[in-house]
Amino acid sequence: MTELEKMGARAKDAAGILRIVSSEDKELALKEVAGALIRRQSEILEANRQDLAAAEAGGMPRSMLDRLALSEERIRGMADGVTAVSEWPDPVGRVLEEYDLPNGLHVRRVSVPLGVIGIIFEARPNVTSDCAALCIRAGSACILRGGKEAFRTNLAVTRIMREALSDSPLPADCVQLVTDTDRRSATEMMNLTEYLDVLIPRGGAGLIRSVVDNARVPVIETGAGNCHIYVDKAASVEMAAAIAVNAKTSRPSVCNAAEKLLVHREIADMALPVIGKRLREKAVELRGDDASREIFRDIRPATDDDWGKEYVDLIMGVRIVDSIEEAIRHIERWSTHHSDCIVTEDPAAAAKFQTEVDSAVVYHNASTRFTDGGELGLGAEIGISTQKLHARGPMGVNQLVTYKYIIDGNGQIR
Amino acid sequence: MTELEKMGARAKDAAGILRIVSSEDKELALKEVAGALIRRQSEILEANRQDLAAAEAGGMPRSMLDRLALSEERIRGMADGVTAVSEWPDPVGRVLEEYDLPNGLHVRRVSVPLGVIGIIFEARPNVTSDCAALCIRAGSACILRGGKEAFRTNLAVTRIMREALSDSPLPADCVQLVTDTDRRSATEMMNLTEYLDVLIPRGGAGLIRSVVDNARVPVIETGAGNCHIYVDKAASVEMAAAIAVNAKTSRPSVCNAAEKLLVHREIADMALPVIGKRLREKAVELRGDDASREIFRDIRPATDDDWGKEYVDLIMGVRIVDSIEEAIRHIERWSTHHSDCIVTEDPAAAAKFQTEVDSAVVYHNASTRFTDGGELGLGAEIGISTQKLHARGPMGVNQLVTYKYIIDGNGQIR
Repeated sequence: MTELEKMGARAKDAAGILRIVSSEDKELALKEVAGALIRRQSEILEANRQDLAAAEAGGMPRSMLDRLALSEERIRGMADGVTAVSEWPDPVGRVLEEYDLPNGLHVRRVSVPLGVIGIIFEARPNVTSDCAALCIRAGSACILRGGKEAFRTNLAVTRIMREALSDSPLPADCVQLVTDTDRRSATEMMNLTEYLDVLIPRGGAGLIRSVVDNARVPVIETGAGNCHIYVDKAASVEMAAAIAVNAKTSRPSVCNAAEKLLVHREIADMALPVIGKRLREKAVELRGDDASREIFRDIRPATDDDWGKEYVDLIMGVRIVDSIEEAIRHIERWSTHHSDCIVTEDPAAAAKFQTEVDSAVVYHNASTRFTDGGELGLGAEIGISTQKLHARGPMGVNQLVTYKYIIDGNGQIR
Repeated sequence: MTELEKMGARAKDAAGILRIVSSEDKELALKEVAGALIRRQSEILEANRQDLAAAEAGGMPRSMLDRLALSEERIRGMADGVTAVSEWPDPVGRVLEEYDLPNGLHVRRVSVPLGVIGIIFEARPNVTSDCAALCIRAGSACILRGGKEAFRTNLAVTRIMREALSDSPLPADCVQLVTDTDRRSATEMMNLTEYLDVLIPRGGAGLIRSVVDNARVPVIETGAGNCHIYVDKAASVEMAAAIAVNAKTSRPSVCNAAEKLLVHREIADMALPVIGKRLREKAVELRGDDASREIFRDIRPATDDDWGKEYVDLIMGVRIVDSIEEAIRHIERWSTHHSDCIVTEDPAAAAKFQTEVDSAVVYHNASTRFTDGGELGLGAEIGISTQKLHARGPMGVNQLVTYKYIIDGNGQIR
């Protein structure tokens, strides 16, 4: 057995215990974890200082160093996150359906834990405690593989979590960290079908693509957001500008940020100068099709490469469309089907758009930035699914479970 | 663009229409299809005769020829299946959740079609019409790739279905058959991520393994059933014998047939001679552990290879266990987590078994043969999922959909 297989076997044993412990025990254990993160924060901060020093010496850019850095306040945030998840209603053990068959069989469909969840993530060390807490609340053990840059920090966080779990009714092996951070361990993890029930990649497009391409374990694809704001001919220009600016600029590095602006031709002459000006005041670089470049003559032309791209930056592609149908076709062709929005005062146009655009979340008159577990009332999220199987959109604890049929008879045969 | 990519693009267009047609139109279209299958059955029978002649000349074994062969009666069955699916309540457009957020956003989570479903299957030509009907009822277009042996039959069936669809409000491209039946087309299909939302393999263990290993498109793993009957110390021996015989012998070639018999040591001396005799009277070959071979001295020893195997034949592995815990551990180690059963008069033992055995369907005092969409009241099924993502156990039309969030605001920004 390889190290990872041994880890898988231990996780499976832990999952067997998690499957039968009470909701209260899971809550208690997570409270222990939250307390320990605060109590032992100096260990985490020391490990994080070492990671930061190594990363800085290695030439890591400022923005990434900032993601990697922890502080007392950030650790408080991690602990608060664990506490909030601990108090979320238990998603396990719910009777989703219950009925009797004519032959007397009594059928119950009941929510149960997934089992063992693998998570491959990149630099941010708070992901470690967030994901582990979500998995435990949902009754699953997890195997975490974080980025090399945050390794010492992740190790400190998981050590503290494991020791806190040891003082609780749950086994320490509910949370394990892969200590081998070279590429081989990721590949092995993607093929650990005997032990992993699901694999969730959290990170940039490259990581997600690599997992989708190589995994034999079932994957939940998360993240990429090429989100659109379509300004219909019946839009309020003021509302469209406010939504576009918010969706583009309030946090350009996240997946629910808008990347493209489509404007109906009938309103473009009036609306686009206003919206474009407001965006440019916020330092957004516009790139446009020919028609929009007649309004903004100084902007770069947008190519197919632009239409397909998630900039994750203060850049926005702009296109003028002849009709709502053309807007929908553009979105169907280029969207990553994460979140798309129509701004209009016409309810029929809104209904058409929301029916025909095949994305996880389709907005009418609201910023795409609301696609977030916390914002939508689902609690903390483990990621935003952009595939259609299992869960779509933000995945909270309620989406981290499966179900089974429990059938009672008195000797029925077929 | 390759042929398959063109097919994918056409399927995506058809899916766009299917997404917005009414429930009545889908029902009407499927009724057209059912009628056409009956009306034009001579074309199907003629194509099937050619397939059979070629298969026989190629030396196909009798049992497989039987699966391949159609008759007027079997075509009637196919048409009746399509009609039954057409009348199933529409799984699309259901509001699964609806709530208002404090900021005034109105959130609806609504069931929507998956989009384009790929199905790779083996010899049985009735799968063609079954799967196509289920996909259409669930609002998805499908791309079917059947076995080489049934190619002419599948072509006739899909041609008739497509022509019937052309006379309906739905486009013919709701159903397409891959006409290139060499291995390359299967591999290409497994990687058609741009067009396929999900891929479902239907067939033997080899096909399923190959799809799981090679697909980048999300897969729903179906089928393999190494199902267990555990006879608890508090079992009714008569009931245990009836269930074991039914689960093993009523149709040994299917995935919900039982493959293993576990008997509690305290009841074994009394129960195993009775159950074993009844099985052997039905021509079942027993293979046993050391303890059960003291009761049946003439049977072959069972090896680890036996414990892990789905025989799909009149063979059954037998093991005597010291406790319910040992039975559960055995099942956790060897089951494919399809369907497992406890026979007992002790409700506490049943509850323990049903909680701790992590399989799609866990029975108490009933045959594993009930794991079937029709039997469980889910309607026709596209397969039985043995993975935990998306759907578990029998998948009917209700499991062939996904959901999206439709959110209405009046200018909310974050």
